[in-house]
Amino acid sequence: MKRIAILGSTGSIGTQALALAARHPERFRVVALAARENLDLLAEQVRTFRPRLVSVATADGAAALRSRLDGAGAEVVWGEAGILQVATDPDADLVLSAVVGAAGLLPTFAAVRAGKVVALANKEALVTAGELITAEAARRSARLLPVDSEHSAIFQCLERGGGACLRSVILTGSGGPFRTRPKEALPAATPHEALRHPRWNMGKKISIDSATLMNKGLEVIEARWLFGLPVEAIRVLIHPESIVHSLVEYVDGSLLAQLSITDMGLPILYALTYPERLPNHFPTLDLAAVARLTFEEVDHDRFPCLGYAYAAARAGGTGPVVLNAANEVAVGLFLQEAIPFTAIPRLIAEALDRHPVRPVRSVEEVLAADAEVRAALGARYGCAPAARS
Amino acid sequence: MKRIAILGSTGSIGTQALALAARHPERFRVVALAARENLDLLAEQVRTFRPRLVSVATADGAAALRSRLDGAGAEVVWGEAGILQVATDPDADLVLSAVVGAAGLLPTFAAVRAGKVVALANKEALVTAGELITAEAARRSARLLPVDSEHSAIFQCLERGGGACLRSVILTGSGGPFRTRPKEALPAATPHEALRHPRWNMGKKISIDSATLMNKGLEVIEARWLFGLPVEAIRVLIHPESIVHSLVEYVDGSLLAQLSITDMGLPILYALTYPERLPNHFPTLDLAAVARLTFEEVDHDRFPCLGYAYAAARAGGTGPVVLNAANEVAVGLFLQEAIPFTAIPRLIAEALDRHPVRPVRSVEEVLAADAEVRAALGARYGCAPAARS
Repeated sequence: MKRIAILGSTGSIGTQALALAARHPERFRVVALAARENLDLLAEQVRTFRPRLVSVATADGAAALRSRLDGAGAEVVWGEAGILQVATDPDADLVLSAVVGAAGLLPTFAAVRAGKVVALANKEALVTAGELITAEAARRSARLLPVDSEHSAIFQCLERGGGACLRSVILTGSGGPFRTRPKEALPAATPHEALRHPRWNMGKKISIDSATLMNKGLEVIEARWLFGLPVEAIRVLIHPESIVHSLVEYVDGSLLAQLSITDMGLPILYALTYPERLPNHFPTLDLAAVARLTFEEVDHDRFPCLGYAYAAARAGGTGPVVLNAANEVAVGLFLQEAIPFTAIPRLIAEALDRHPVRPVRSVEEVLAADAEVRAALGARYGCAPAARS
Repeated sequence: MKRIAILGSTGSIGTQALALAARHPERFRVVALAARENLDLLAEQVRTFRPRLVSVATADGAAALRSRLDGAGAEVVWGEAGILQVATDPDADLVLSAVVGAAGLLPTFAAVRAGKVVALANKEALVTAGELITAEAARRSARLLPVDSEHSAIFQCLERGGGACLRSVILTGSGGPFRTRPKEALPAATPHEALRHPRWNMGKKISIDSATLMNKGLEVIEARWLFGLPVEAIRVLIHPESIVHSLVEYVDGSLLAQLSITDMGLPILYALTYPERLPNHFPTLDLAAVARLTFEEVDHDRFPCLGYAYAAARAGGTGPVVLNAANEVAVGLFLQEAIPFTAIPRLIAEALDRHPVRPVRSVEEVLAADAEVRAALGARYGCAPAARS
């Protein structure tokens, strides 16, 4: 029986994880949940899974939840202290970190510091503070398990082949909803179009990141820290069918790839059951029915965000923090229809130009750089979504 | 430094293995060679690699080789005793079994009995005597390493655990030179056409087996023994590009695949260097340049041999021995243009019908059944290529 805490339980990954926990009650016990403000869903989750600890964003939210849960027996906490309490719950063996954006950094770091097995769906924590988190994980013997389908694929391939003989990893990406759209038509792309991802059913932020290919950029930085690789050894390949979830290449020229149907439930389940695998209810992949798998290079001219991510990763220090904060702000502005689609990379490039890179030695310094970028962009564009929960 | 003996050194696999040994002299020392009758090439190999022991098919061949090697310092032996001496050479750590056909059975069994690491390119040994060989390997702690690209792929995907969660393995096949040829055009297919394999450059016997898909059938039986699987858990998928060399499917619906350029040098090198991988001179696989990988089901109507192999595997005992002997005879007759292409499956089906299955308890019983089938077919068709070297 694995005892699980979920950060971001009402989001896309969180709800899928809970659905899997419900299907395998002999395997999983949900001990703690954290969400922001979807109190309806959270209350339902608490009634279904009976966690002993629940956290929400605000004191008002906590009061409202308490009154709804009258007698359900869960301790309701709130704010940053609340989510940190969930992340470090002594009852939990495994913490699923599925908060969206840089807000996931502090609770993820806390879970690592508490020596938990951390199933990591929040990529921004590693993007902004990968060196700090992986160093802390090594110190505390905390295991980081990838939930992203690409990193799960690489992790599964590496489990077997032997990391010592690794030459490179190849992250695949569907190319997003605008893969075949001509460059001159991109400025008119709407949030509605950008949210209609051709393969994956995901949250809003990651859907926009997929449309700009920033998602691959964040994944490159994430892979760097998860697998301890130089960014030069991490490549990106467009694979529209999203069946091959990523590959690893060995020094002898042999590649291993992980394939499955396109459903986030599979990498979530693998992270939850690792090192075991569980028979499940998902349909099987039928390669003869799929018939063809295609691959193409990234078009960096139409999708400059990926190149910015490589540049930020090479710069190190606050580079990826600036990249990520600017991206979060830009995605927020685009979703509010305050800027056009093609302004997302432009705004990120500007931010990278305006913020000289400096080293980061603590999570506090990461958060300070993050806040600085948001404040500067807020001053220029009149809006800056909060990073902290 | 690995000390290598090669059975079948002048064949396709043998010469490629020696070329790799020549490229990596710091890794490999060739201590013994066995070939049949290509004395020119064998003499050259002896002069290049300086093995201490060499075997040929006949006493005359041995005398001729001795006179050519005047002073080269290799002991020259011959016949079945000769090849067995090479297979069990106390100086060898690894024996590459690359003899074609059932002739590989006795020396492969001898190498296993001698506790060698056996790199297995001869699939007929496992096809005809898989149970005996794998039981003996377990007793003697002899390791069997696959050289076939498909089995090497599966072996690489299975490496380091995961076997317990296995659901199936999927052997890929190019479909051979007649993949798209209509059924009514198959009787007129010539040996010349059948030998022009679209993807792999291989020996004659295996090229014809690829054209009939019997090669996949033999591989199914080989996989059964190499990986200890019921035949129901072994599937075949046509993949014309020959880039994905095989796949394994886990109980959770996740698949791992091994990919590389289409060159037998890679699986040969992996078997020789296992458990390490060696940087090498082969070109890298560029998936974006390949652009597409396609998959389709086997057409059992046009290619009945695969179905016969499954049936023989299910029957067990002498079933696969009869299948294999009849196939070797039929391929020989086809290469001599004594029978048409479509007579190959017909002759195999007849043989399976005429020879009731009985259990096999020893290699001698396997060889007796093999000889019986060849004699019966020889009486009917006036020709039966020898099984033993």
